[in-house]
Amino acid sequence: MMYSRILLAVDLTDESIKVANKAVALCKATGAELTILHVIESLNYAYGGDVPIDITDIQAQLQETAKERIAILEAQLDVPVQESCISQGGIESEIHRIAEEKRVDLIVVGSHGRHGLALLLGSTANGVLHGAPCDVLAVKVAKDKD
Amino acid sequence: MMYSRILLAVDLTDESIKVANKAVALCKATGAELTILHVIESLNYAYGGDVPIDITDIQAQLQETAKERIAILEAQLDVPVQESCISQGGIESEIHRIAEEKRVDLIVVGSHGRHGLALLLGSTANGVLHGAPCDVLAVKVAKDKD
Repeated sequence: MMYSRILLAVDLTDESIKVANKAVALCKATGAELTILHVIESLNYAYGGDVPIDITDIQAQLQETAKERIAILEAQLDVPVQESCISQGGIESEIHRIAEEKRVDLIVVGSHGRHGLALLLGSTANGVLHGAPCDVLAVKVAKDKD
Repeated sequence: MMYSRILLAVDLTDESIKVANKAVALCKATGAELTILHVIESLNYAYGGDVPIDITDIQAQLQETAKERIAILEAQLDVPVQESCISQGGIESEIHRIAEEKRVDLIVVGSHGRHGLALLLGSTANGVLHGAPCDVLAVKVAKDKD
């Protein structure tokens, strides 16, 4: 088959369902298994260095929220989900790491500008493409802002 | 259906068949029509300004070579090709323009570093992603060099 393991990387915003549905359609068309990944950007990463406050509570809350949202997303999908992962670190590097670990042959990611500093660095989709271990499908969810 | 019109953008190097086969598999899986596009980068673009020599002959030769190679590629594909286009200009902008003109819903492009100056600007796949009017599938053909 064309693809056997698809990794859907979502930011769990409202647009994620649109990206997810493309991944689901591809799974149906190719018989691929679907793994979902959400990366919680480490606050250290987000602010580019040491954060001099205890962020354990905040990270735990983010984790809890992500779990709930990923469950809601899963429930809306038309194919069974092989596995859902919540990971923490740099977004692009975590997506690449998990893609290698799970030996996926396609990463599906939403393509839209991100807010704030990331705008200067380009969209996540561009970052995911750069150095990806496999094919990448960038699903258009909004006009590029950058 | 998931995709109805797929635009395969190829540089007509040896790697193009690998990218083309992914597009073909997607066409088969989704029932989409396949259009092939090769962009001949204008020499003006390639050298970033006016070229003080008559380049008409060179462009005509490039055009002729592209026609031959695209015919060879077409002959190797497992689905009928709706249309093959050879266009001239900036690579990313021409891909976007043709994608809009043909109202495609997916652009398939090879993902690998390019040589020379373009390396500094990032790979074509990244360029295609940026500002694309639709989804983009970047097919991994070689290690990113940039």
